[in-house]
Amino acid sequence: MTELHNRQFILTSRPVGMVKRSDFDFPTVPVGQPGPGEALVKVLYISLDPAMRGWMNEGKSYIPPVGLGEVMRAGGVGTVVASNDPSLSVGDSVVGMTGVQDYAIIKAKELTKIDPALAPLPRYLGALGMPGMTAYFGLLDVCAPKAGETVVVSGAAGAVGALVGQIAKLKGCHVVGIAGGPDKCRYIIDELGFDAAIDYKNESVRKGMAKHCPKGIDVYFDNVGGDILDDVLGQLARKARIAICGAISQYNSTEGVQGPKNYLSLLVNRARMEGFIVFDYAPRYGEGVQALAGWLAEGKLKAQEDIVDGLETFPETLLKLFSGENFGKLVIKVANS
Amino acid sequence: MTELHNRQFILTSRPVGMVKRSDFDFPTVPVGQPGPGEALVKVLYISLDPAMRGWMNEGKSYIPPVGLGEVMRAGGVGTVVASNDPSLSVGDSVVGMTGVQDYAIIKAKELTKIDPALAPLPRYLGALGMPGMTAYFGLLDVCAPKAGETVVVSGAAGAVGALVGQIAKLKGCHVVGIAGGPDKCRYIIDELGFDAAIDYKNESVRKGMAKHCPKGIDVYFDNVGGDILDDVLGQLARKARIAICGAISQYNSTEGVQGPKNYLSLLVNRARMEGFIVFDYAPRYGEGVQALAGWLAEGKLKAQEDIVDGLETFPETLLKLFSGENFGKLVIKVANS
Repeated sequence: MTELHNRQFILTSRPVGMVKRSDFDFPTVPVGQPGPGEALVKVLYISLDPAMRGWMNEGKSYIPPVGLGEVMRAGGVGTVVASNDPSLSVGDSVVGMTGVQDYAIIKAKELTKIDPALAPLPRYLGALGMPGMTAYFGLLDVCAPKAGETVVVSGAAGAVGALVGQIAKLKGCHVVGIAGGPDKCRYIIDELGFDAAIDYKNESVRKGMAKHCPKGIDVYFDNVGGDILDDVLGQLARKARIAICGAISQYNSTEGVQGPKNYLSLLVNRARMEGFIVFDYAPRYGEGVQALAGWLAEGKLKAQEDIVDGLETFPETLLKLFSGENFGKLVIKVANS
Repeated sequence: MTELHNRQFILTSRPVGMVKRSDFDFPTVPVGQPGPGEALVKVLYISLDPAMRGWMNEGKSYIPPVGLGEVMRAGGVGTVVASNDPSLSVGDSVVGMTGVQDYAIIKAKELTKIDPALAPLPRYLGALGMPGMTAYFGLLDVCAPKAGETVVVSGAAGAVGALVGQIAKLKGCHVVGIAGGPDKCRYIIDELGFDAAIDYKNESVRKGMAKHCPKGIDVYFDNVGGDILDDVLGQLARKARIAICGAISQYNSTEGVQGPKNYLSLLVNRARMEGFIVFDYAPRYGEGVQALAGWLAEGKLKAQEDIVDGLETFPETLLKLFSGENFGKLVIKVANS
């Protein structure tokens, strides 16, 4: 084997506000050999997710923060180029927590083999990966929407939101998406089949919901937090369910998180707000993948990836999530094969 | 029948901030005769509840606001002095929405007969009334505490909180009460059997919870909102349940409600925050009364009423709820019999 070189994004400081290139080192280091039970993976695509911003912060959360001096954590898909475990062979396509780098040495049991013939590789980071599982279990398990109910989702043209809305439509709900800009709003209606869209950058979310949710909001799948969460709380239907999936509007705040002033609407409407972490559903991922892959194959569900070329673009590409520039699941293409 | 005179508190303006005497008229008017299906009730005790503050505000809530020019709404117990319905006889003791006045004409079907031999009359406004039902269903139905779990309740020496903590103890939980002042804190430990108390007026709630809830908070029954809710959110255990019963710290705010900045703890801890309205449990009140009356009779549950003399004291007595001066269920004694 010729000697392989590995470019890595190393977190060197805890970002304040928006992530900056100067929060990372970007060295090139030699690639090591996999130890017993490990495989060496050549990374082809890495996943960019809003949750990554939280992983960069100090302090207790649902998983430990990325340590200073460590490779930035990220999901990725790649190809096994060396294996020291009988379960994996050179050439296998796998998905796992590769980190933001060209090559990763990972325990074989923490990698999942995937079939590149069944779906394009980036899809295993989107509809068939964490965003898919997040949408599927967060909507169906946490919110349990019933046919005829009104479902609102924010970040509706994003990786998770686009799936949430489509799954809710498949379940017979009236679906309203909140997205930024006319292109995304047209997309979620014309391409994804949402019933209505509210362009939060150009219209009043409150008025939009009053118009499109005349019977109130039964289910809200929240990816954004902030003012939009307050607007939704103000228009809940009785016994409404809110799934707190994320709060992308708050992740870069330097003034602390904005609490939902309208939370007493939960009392008035006997409503519920519940957080969840997709990892808790790991034992049921099989069910989720099967359902989503089935709908994709039948053409009942559309998945879209927003692919940016080049590992070296990582810090700037990540910011697209927070400015709302991405259209569908944001991934970085690291290598061709 | 000699002519009866009726003093009434009439809401004449929507209070801004704390309720003032000048928000009411206090006329004396003649007492009318009950129409078909109605009874005339001489009011003996009226119930003072934090929710009354909300009923004085304009706007949509779980029940309509008290109209300007109307008698202030209140629960009360009294004696039937005239009946125009076969279900009620003169001399019957009843509980119902009497309003803040000496006499009330109420539909018989909206009154519930009570037995003055089984419990002192004010108890039917407390442990055997709305506060009892609120504690019972809010804790057991919304929060479903399991033996061994840590339950925190705010307003712990109040009408609802004192019952919540005692019911949680009966269910085998580790119970921590938050109350104002050393007397109340001693009371909830020594008299009511709570495991620990935090005096929010004299110590850090955050540090108190860190000390008394080392495994985190599984259940929080919230009567107060505000900073204490944020402190609790910061120390949730996994899969915690928060019942939003009220937010007494916020009811008189002139700057809008303070939203819980730590609400993303719901996400990190896969936790749930849920509002409820006791009236929804009306079909199950029988179950609640039976359980509470049984525990009271067996000496497993203590109820305490804070009785203030004189209908005329209403505006000032109500303020005791918001300054935290009351000790147990606050009622006004209107007449002896």
